[in-house]
Amino acid sequence: MRIDIISVLPELMESPFRTSILKRAMDKGLAEVHFHHLRDWAINKHRQIDDEPYGGGAGMVMMIEPLDKCISELKSQREYDEVIYLTPDGVTLNQKIANTLSIKQNLIFLCGHYKGIDQRVRDLIFLCGHYKGIDQRVRDLHITKEISIGDYVLTGGELAACVLADSVIRLLPGVLNDEQSALTDSFQDDLLSPPIYTRPEVYKGLEVPKILLSGNFAKIEEWRHNEALRITREKRPDLL
Amino acid sequence: MRIDIISVLPELMESPFRTSILKRAMDKGLAEVHFHHLRDWAINKHRQIDDEPYGGGAGMVMMIEPLDKCISELKSQREYDEVIYLTPDGVTLNQKIANTLSIKQNLIFLCGHYKGIDQRVRDLIFLCGHYKGIDQRVRDLHITKEISIGDYVLTGGELAACVLADSVIRLLPGVLNDEQSALTDSFQDDLLSPPIYTRPEVYKGLEVPKILLSGNFAKIEEWRHNEALRITREKRPDLL
Repeated sequence: MRIDIISVLPELMESPFRTSILKRAMDKGLAEVHFHHLRDWAINKHRQIDDEPYGGGAGMVMMIEPLDKCISELKSQREYDEVIYLTPDGVTLNQKIANTLSIKQNLIFLCGHYKGIDQRVRDLIFLCGHYKGIDQRVRDLHITKEISIGDYVLTGGELAACVLADSVIRLLPGVLNDEQSALTDSFQDDLLSPPIYTRPEVYKGLEVPKILLSGNFAKIEEWRHNEALRITREKRPDLL
Repeated sequence: MRIDIISVLPELMESPFRTSILKRAMDKGLAEVHFHHLRDWAINKHRQIDDEPYGGGAGMVMMIEPLDKCISELKSQREYDEVIYLTPDGVTLNQKIANTLSIKQNLIFLCGHYKGIDQRVRDLIFLCGHYKGIDQRVRDLHITKEISIGDYVLTGGELAACVLADSVIRLLPGVLNDEQSALTDSFQDDLLSPPIYTRPEVYKGLEVPKILLSGNFAKIEEWRHNEALRITREKRPDLL
C-alpha cells in the first residue's frame, strides 16, 4: 500500500509515522508513506497557498491551483484508488471503512486446483484540510472520498490523516505480530470488548473475577460474550 | 489548562505537540502538557508493564500496579478534574464534549456592578490505552471518563490523546488568532459548513457561484445557511 499525504504541515505527522506499528509496516515494506508539502506547489514566491473566501467571512481558504497541480502531478505518476479529503464534513470513519480501504479482495478460482485470494493493496492520496477548508472546486474536480474521523473540529486534517493511516495500515496482512488480536478488537464484531484482567489476582483488595481463573475455557468464552453484550447494551446500544 | 498524558509510547506524540496550534498554546502559557512514560512505574527491572490476560486469549493487558502508582503520584501533586481513559469502548467524542472539557464557566453576579465569567480551566489526566487495554480494576479505581474518538480501532490511545488535546486546546480563549473562525466551524451549530471558494474566479472553466461575488452580504448569508442545510441534509441527516 502506498499513501501520499498532501499537507501544509507535514512536520506535524513526523513522530506518529516513525513510531510503533506504522514504522514497522514501512520497515517491512508493507506500506509506503510519502509526504508532500503543499507550499511546493504554491502560486508565487511568497509560497502562497491560501486566500480569503469570496463573499467574506472569517478564516482562509486553500486555493485550487496549488492543490490541482499537486494532485495532477501525483496522478500522472501512478493510478490511485482513492483521493481522500480529510474533513469534518465527510463520511464518518468506522471500522468497516478502515477494513475496505485496507484491502480489496478478489476471489480467484484457478482450474479447480486451489482457491486463492488476490489481495490487491491500494494506492491512496490523503489531502489534509486546513484553515477553513479547500476551495469547493477541488472537491468537484479530484476528491473521490471525504472522510471525517468524528464530529469534532481539529486544527487541521493532519491528525485525521495519522488516525486514518493507522486504522488502515494495522490491518494489512503481516503488520501486526498477532493478527488474532486484531480480529477480537472492538467493532470487528459490532460489540465492545469484555473486561480484561491480568496479574496480580488481588491488588489492594480488588479481585479478578473467579470465572477467569477457572480454566474452563468454554465458560470463559460464554462469560466474555455476555459481558461484551452487557457493556455494549449499557454504553453503546446504537451498535446492537 | 494542564494535561498529563500517561503512555507507553510518548515519543509518538512528539511532533503533534511541538507544531501548530498546540505549540502556540504552550508557548503562550495557555496550556501545559506533560508526558509520563508508564515504564517509569514498571514492576521490575525488565520495565514490565503488561502481562497475559487471565482466562487466556490474544493480546496483552496493561497491569494495574504501574498505572495505579503513576496516577496516584500525579493525584498527590494536584487536584485533577478528570482522569480520562482513551479507549474505543468510551463515549464517542463530539464537539459538545470538547467544549465542556475546554472550559467550565460559572456565571458570577457581583453587586450589580458587572456580570463576569469565571473561566476556570481544567487539569486533566489522559491515559492512553495500548495492547488489548488496561486491567478493568484501573477503570474501577481511577478513571472518571472514558472517551473514544470514533468507532474504529487504533494501535494505541496516543493518536486519540493528540486528537482530544487538539480539539480541546484550540478552544481555550487566546489560542486561535481568529476566534470568530472557530465559532463558524462545522458542528458548532450542528450544521456542516457551506461550500467555500477563493481566487481565482474562474479556474479551468470552473466558476465561483455568482452570489458570492455580488457584495450583497445578507443574500450571501442566506445562501450559505441554505447550502449548509442542504449539505447536512444530504450527507448527515442524523445531525438535524
